[in-house]
Amino acid sequence: MFPGALPHPGRMRQHVARHVTMAEDRRGRSADVTAESLLVSWNDTPARQAIVAFVHAVASEGSPGFAEPAERVAVFDNDGTLWPEKPIPIQLDFTLFRMAELAVRNPSLKDRQPYKAAAERDYRWLGEAMIKHYHGDDADLRLLEGAVESAFAGMDVEAFGSEVLAWFESASHPTLRRPYLSCGFMPMVELLRYLEANGFVTYIASGGDRDFMRPFARRLYGIPPERVIGSALGLDLDSGGDDTALMYKSKIEFFDDGPEKPVRIWSRIGRRPLVAGGNSNGDIPMLRFARKGQRSALRLLVLHDDADREFAYTASSEKALDRARTHGWTTISIKNDWATVFTDRRLPPVPDPEVTGLR
Amino acid sequence: MFPGALPHPGRMRQHVARHVTMAEDRRGRSADVTAESLLVSWNDTPARQAIVAFVHAVASEGSPGFAEPAERVAVFDNDGTLWPEKPIPIQLDFTLFRMAELAVRNPSLKDRQPYKAAAERDYRWLGEAMIKHYHGDDADLRLLEGAVESAFAGMDVEAFGSEVLAWFESASHPTLRRPYLSCGFMPMVELLRYLEANGFVTYIASGGDRDFMRPFARRLYGIPPERVIGSALGLDLDSGGDDTALMYKSKIEFFDDGPEKPVRIWSRIGRRPLVAGGNSNGDIPMLRFARKGQRSALRLLVLHDDADREFAYTASSEKALDRARTHGWTTISIKNDWATVFTDRRLPPVPDPEVTGLR
Repeated sequence: MFPGALPHPGRMRQHVARHVTMAEDRRGRSADVTAESLLVSWNDTPARQAIVAFVHAVASEGSPGFAEPAERVAVFDNDGTLWPEKPIPIQLDFTLFRMAELAVRNPSLKDRQPYKAAAERDYRWLGEAMIKHYHGDDADLRLLEGAVESAFAGMDVEAFGSEVLAWFESASHPTLRRPYLSCGFMPMVELLRYLEANGFVTYIASGGDRDFMRPFARRLYGIPPERVIGSALGLDLDSGGDDTALMYKSKIEFFDDGPEKPVRIWSRIGRRPLVAGGNSNGDIPMLRFARKGQRSALRLLVLHDDADREFAYTASSEKALDRARTHGWTTISIKNDWATVFTDRRLPPVPDPEVTGLR
Repeated sequence: MFPGALPHPGRMRQHVARHVTMAEDRRGRSADVTAESLLVSWNDTPARQAIVAFVHAVASEGSPGFAEPAERVAVFDNDGTLWPEKPIPIQLDFTLFRMAELAVRNPSLKDRQPYKAAAERDYRWLGEAMIKHYHGDDADLRLLEGAVESAFAGMDVEAFGSEVLAWFESASHPTLRRPYLSCGFMPMVELLRYLEANGFVTYIASGGDRDFMRPFARRLYGIPPERVIGSALGLDLDSGGDDTALMYKSKIEFFDDGPEKPVRIWSRIGRRPLVAGGNSNGDIPMLRFARKGQRSALRLLVLHDDADREFAYTASSEKALDRARTHGWTTISIKNDWATVFTDRRLPPVPDPEVTGLR
């Protein structure tokens, strides 16, 4: 829908393939593919230098940091790491869209929260639910959680994927005024390609819902469904008819955040990552898991400090930022390290006080 | 340890790569890589012909059966499909080895079942536990299950992998008199390579323990850890020290058999398979899951009918064999369809009445 919005994985791969072939021709085996051609949205700062130095060592046989190709696994959180998570997580926006749809089909829901808020696009109710939560009143938050868990109950996995894709065709960010499909952080997409060009296999490891991310992860990030790790609803096999189908339960199987992230990474990959990127306290166990004994690892933490181009906040990231300082993790400042955050493609301004008030 | 025992994945890949390159040179894009060079342990029977016809259609653009590379997913059960499962599952043999080890370290276990049987290599106790189970007395089976679940409690995932690998260096099949590392079914390993050469991504989807299979799956089958789907013990993150570690709980997270197989395949891959191979009733849901609507699928069922070269039994496979007949699945007769079952490498005969009595 938005061609050219992000480096196209296919085109990028061709470019990279050509590059690797040249490197192989020259040296008989591929070493570090130069960062110059791939990390073009990055400023030449210590963060970028740390990334390039690490990858160069990993890819250079004989270097103390060399790692066999099988060990080159990179995992990245999604919300706040590969795309924005403010003012509300994009997945929540989708779920509200679904709740509004349910309220249209079942008018008895229209006067109940959170369906009412969803149908009226009243994001203030959501904001107030969060404020009440911080003041110890979880009643509204529980209403929301219950509705989120049951929003797709009984839907089969393939129908859900089609709904997600259809929604992304037109959904856009409420304050950045760009299609969600062009909300991927350009420098991070470049980093994925740069790692892959140097023999890494890249994965998403996010607290977001696995099956929500899968349909767009290939398009935004060039990452196929089998490399998307995330939270999951339970699944039931319906084999009553001629065809079998997998249906969502209205119950979460696991929430892939905090100490659960290493569990899910191991379950899926069977190896520790060598590169891990995140942005919040929930990513600490994943970043710690990348290191074992004397083996060095690249731990990346995205710092949201750019109110002009994205958002500026440190809430829910304080401990991670502390740990980055004390344990040699590489903090990526959006403001200082990224020359470009998104592509230039924006939607025309749409004044919407209810929405922009949240920023 | 046993070089040459099975087609070496690396060598095989080179061979295949050369083949694909030739096909590309000739036709501008790779189509079906000929079966002649890869399925050499197969007799030219209807089973082999069905496989080759299906793969040829999938790989031939313009053919009604053509499938995009992203759709070319193949899943295979392990026990009884890629290697033998008689007289006892190989994983159980490993677990008994571990129990014997525990009994040595903790002599109070020596007089308790199943540790006593494990320490004395008294496989009759196991056989009798199963016979009692069939007669409605599950007491001994429960002792065994409890010991299996707790055999690795508190061990970290990487230490477990090393134990598995070390055991495989010397463990051998009790009646076939060959190292376990040369117990892979040669024709099935060839089939994996043949599918991969035609653009398929191959996975194991087994009721066996995921982390038990991972260390040997690459060596026996050329399948890396991230493509091994199986049952799993729960995991806990231990992040107390400087390093983090993942420790097994003494509790199973899920048993990947029957209707759970499609759930685990979807969770891992995010797609339905196009090729599914199994051998028992527990594989029925996986084989059914391969088909959706009008899309054709290749469903393979290994029939153990060769008492001379492997084993002959249909117990626990009756429903699957029925379904194969009524729903057009391809049954693979070990006796008739395979020219070679294993390689020629066997160990010298070791008479052991306790063991061979089980056959």
